[in-house]
Amino acid sequence: MTVEPHKFEINTHGNNHVLNITEQVNTCIQSGAIRNGIVTVSVIGSTAGITTTEFEPGLATHDLQHAFEGIAPENGDYLHEETWHDDNGHSHVRASLLGPSITIPLINAELQLGTWQQIVLIDFDTRKRDRRIIVQVVGG
Amino acid sequence: MTVEPHKFEINTHGNNHVLNITEQVNTCIQSGAIRNGIVTVSVIGSTAGITTTEFEPGLATHDLQHAFEGIAPENGDYLHEETWHDDNGHSHVRASLLGPSITIPLINAELQLGTWQQIVLIDFDTRKRDRRIIVQVVGG
Amino acid sequence: MTVEPHKFEINTHGNNHVLNITEQVNTCIQSGAIRNGIVTVSVIGSTAGITTTEFEPGLATHDLQHAFEGIAPENGDYLHEETWHDDNGHSHVRASLLGPSITIPLINAELQLGTWQQIVLIDFDTRKRDRRIIVQVVGG
Repeated sequence: MTVEPHKFEINTHGNNHVLNITEQVNTCIQSGAIRNGIVTVSVIGSTAGITTTEFEPGLATHDLQHAFEGIAPENGDYLHEETWHDDNGHSHVRASLLGPSITIPLINAELQLGTWQQIVLIDFDTRKRDRRIIVQVVGG
Repeated sequence: MTVEPHKFEINTHGNNHVLNITEQVNTCIQSGAIRNGIVTVSVIGSTAGITTTEFEPGLATHDLQHAFEGIAPENGDYLHEETWHDDNGHSHVRASLLGPSITIPLINAELQLGTWQQIVLIDFDTRKRDRRIIVQVVGG
Repeated sequence: MTVEPHKFEINTHGNNHVLNITEQVNTCIQSGAIRNGIVTVSVIGSTAGITTTEFEPGLATHDLQHAFEGIAPENGDYLHEETWHDDNGHSHVRASLLGPSITIPLINAELQLGTWQQIVLIDFDTRKRDRRIIVQVVGG
């Protein structure tokens, strides 16, 4: 039993950009020796989140964004924006609801995901960002 | 320290069916030897999710579904449905927001949950499904 | 590799009280010997949740609460309340959507969080509560 910490960076467009990071996560896992355990994928920062979805253009470019617009509208009133005189109150709220990390079982070196289930980063910030993703593998 | 992978299958009605899977998860744990660590419960697929709730009929058959109907209405417009000519765009959006897995501490062979807090699978798909649940236990 | 279980209690005002628990979580970690692994932070009960946010007054006292009021209004109709003749149906729904736990990577004894990213407990119940938080550290 051991811990293998991995990291990678990825550029986003912000503004609800949904990025499929499954391949990068798998590359991290395959560079290590752990074959069974759990994999925690976590994004640093409070305006992005991690989940899984079927990565196809409809969900990735419209449907998820539309739901988040209903939950926390871009042009809503946010006291956060009065605190900092910025424009990303909705980004923070969306990220907190989605959560910054996900934990997936690893069995025989395979992430336990469905065929149409990819790990995605959603960047809710209002500008381009360079995001750092931690892939923490615990097992043996 | 070791990893104990467990799996079980469960039939759902789809359509926001909320199933209490706490007993099945506990059966998995009790079939193994790990008494302290963490338990990751994860569903395969992108139209279902895992969380905890008080499992009673009001929440399970109405209240949770009502909130998800507000977040991603069944009869909303989803580009996902144009991609595949299907009808479960809302199912995907709801599942991504809820997330496919949950991680709960295990202490002295007991899941750290409240008396009125059960682990539930919510199946958002628009048809009956056979779901595979992974119960990954890491600890000693 | 080992497991270090930690617990602490915290008093909340309920009613969407957002509490920064990052310092308490770090105190737990520093009282142990594990420097690399994962940290699962979990709240007992079905009317509170855990996530991360930038802990500043705008988000903590208004913006998050406003979004949850849209998702599950305090004065909505909940069958849960008919079951128990109580008033916290919205609390349960909000807690199930947010989720009761979060898992964060630990590297060189440091939680992998951003500078403006704190671990928060959100208590959705309709009264003051004493909450028990589990901080389960797995690693070496």
